[in-house]
Amino acid sequence: MPNGYSVAVVGATGAVGGEFLRLFSERGFPIASLRLLASARSVGKYLTYEGEKLPIEEATTGAFSGVDFAFFSAGASRSRLLAPAALDAGAFVIDNSSAFRMDADVALVVPEVNGNEIKPGRKLYAVPNCTAIILLVAVNPLRKLGAIERLVVSTYQSASGGGAGMMRELEGQTRAALDPEGAPRDRNSAFPPYAFNLFSHNTPINEYGYNEEEWKVIGESRKILGMPDLRINVTCIRVPVLRAHSESVTIEFAGSAPDVESIREALASAPGVRVVDDRAGNDFPTPLMASGQGDVLVGRIRRDVSHPSAISMFIAGDQLLKGAALNAVQIAEEVIRVNQPAAV
Amino acid sequence: MPNGYSVAVVGATGAVGGEFLRLFSERGFPIASLRLLASARSVGKYLTYEGEKLPIEEATTGAFSGVDFAFFSAGASRSRLLAPAALDAGAFVIDNSSAFRMDADVALVVPEVNGNEIKPGRKLYAVPNCTAIILLVAVNPLRKLGAIERLVVSTYQSASGGGAGMMRELEGQTRAALDPEGAPRDRNSAFPPYAFNLFSHNTPINEYGYNEEEWKVIGESRKILGMPDLRINVTCIRVPVLRAHSESVTIEFAGSAPDVESIREALASAPGVRVVDDRAGNDFPTPLMASGQGDVLVGRIRRDVSHPSAISMFIAGDQLLKGAALNAVQIAEEVIRVNQPAAV
Repeated sequence: MPNGYSVAVVGATGAVGGEFLRLFSERGFPIASLRLLASARSVGKYLTYEGEKLPIEEATTGAFSGVDFAFFSAGASRSRLLAPAALDAGAFVIDNSSAFRMDADVALVVPEVNGNEIKPGRKLYAVPNCTAIILLVAVNPLRKLGAIERLVVSTYQSASGGGAGMMRELEGQTRAALDPEGAPRDRNSAFPPYAFNLFSHNTPINEYGYNEEEWKVIGESRKILGMPDLRINVTCIRVPVLRAHSESVTIEFAGSAPDVESIREALASAPGVRVVDDRAGNDFPTPLMASGQGDVLVGRIRRDVSHPSAISMFIAGDQLLKGAALNAVQIAEEVIRVNQPAAV
Repeated sequence: MPNGYSVAVVGATGAVGGEFLRLFSERGFPIASLRLLASARSVGKYLTYEGEKLPIEEATTGAFSGVDFAFFSAGASRSRLLAPAALDAGAFVIDNSSAFRMDADVALVVPEVNGNEIKPGRKLYAVPNCTAIILLVAVNPLRKLGAIERLVVSTYQSASGGGAGMMRELEGQTRAALDPEGAPRDRNSAFPPYAFNLFSHNTPINEYGYNEEEWKVIGESRKILGMPDLRINVTCIRVPVLRAHSESVTIEFAGSAPDVESIREALASAPGVRVVDDRAGNDFPTPLMASGQGDVLVGRIRRDVSHPSAISMFIAGDQLLKGAALNAVQIAEEVIRVNQPAAV
């Protein structure tokens, strides 16, 4: 394919879909033809890619003929329905949903962490949960400083994790809250009031008292790190922020805790990480700073005064980019590399 | 004083000051006369208390003559300057600032936790840091279930903690963010952008990498609980919420962790606590739910899957009420009780 690949995006009209188009162009992803797929109700609409107006087509099992790369970001049930058709058509499938992540034979990949899972001939790749990706990009580089025994994580998750609809809902509810004289507004009752408010992630709670989001982060982190017995506790909270997730992370090591300088050095040289840790200037990661950035920002690095072997830090990463679209495109780039014939 | 007490409020025009007036009325605090004190620039303004228009007077060392109770909420330097004058005038002083909290001979009181520190003849009481109060109201009742070994806390703190000015700043910046066509707005550069953003608490970082707010919570919790060696780690984050603080709390016990039902029972019967923990309905504490409420709300109660002796929970409490004004008024009510002549 000298001129590039035939690429399909399923969920092209969503918040992550828009980031795919921007990233393809920005990173020069080798595209010969681009097919934008979505649900039937978007058929008739158009999106612009590199100056060209492209029609939205309906995402059906028949839509993948000739496709080399199919990027899925339209929810788990859509992936379960359509990804097999894309694989049958011979495409590499990079799936942003939770549909296949925990299947034993499916590679769940954060390229900076377990890029070695991207192997010649492997066709299906799952993009992990956004909160897990952002966490592991920041945590994995510290494994060379000592064996990690336990993680305690509290999250500050943005509206974008709930899709473009939740982002609009946050803006709309906030507008209404600032103008109590205005017309009353019906709010989306699938989650608590959102304007100037935060809430426990609105996914079902399991028998252990953890919600689905937390359970994903726990299970996926163990799989990606290859540490099936990793002790990890997560509390997932949705905050009134638009598009980047933040996380307060405490890490207990098996031995004594590494010192702050070693941690900063390990992170500064790690791919996908930017250290923002200026104590004197009180300059640390914020979700606004992380928005639109590919890197995960890490700061507030310190020894945990409550535990001789622990450290704490505060991180932020763009949920739509490294948490979703960017991680998927990075997987595809590596898929191209490992499947190329060896140079002569 | 059969008709009540002469009361002074220092910082009457602030966010906490307004809550004092509301609480005095709501709780029937026995007031014979009320003096509203603030900085010179508020002189000439009036506030209404129970239908009566009261002038703002300048808070000076001479302002406490005849005062029985002086409530301070105007910052530590103002308290350091004026509280000694109020004490000299014979007043009971209830101070919301950090000025005297860690003085060995000053009582630092959360009535539900260490109300026994309120003793006949004692004149000066310090109200703890808001984050510490809300934390301890929820944590203290669990001590009867087992010895607490370690706390790991991440906070979600509201604008009100930075005063009425920070609340207005959050609203103003958010308005501007929603209307990018509008006039550009100078933002307060004392802290990072706040609209749809969050940031590490903007207080100075000490040599251990902790900010002033975190260090207060650590030191004050140890003093209030009477556990000078308590292991406690805190990460304080400011979120775009108006007036209630939330906290993600993990508690490690010395023995095995208490079960969820015992925790719920201990909290349900504890003063100042309301359990909001409906797993099936996904109904848990939010700051909006806590706003205007005297109780600290507790939910997401669960065994910590990463530690055999730990539990986690998520709490929310009104920063202006239990975090400040209400805790102060409760102290004063108890001061009245313990200083009354014994019933015959």
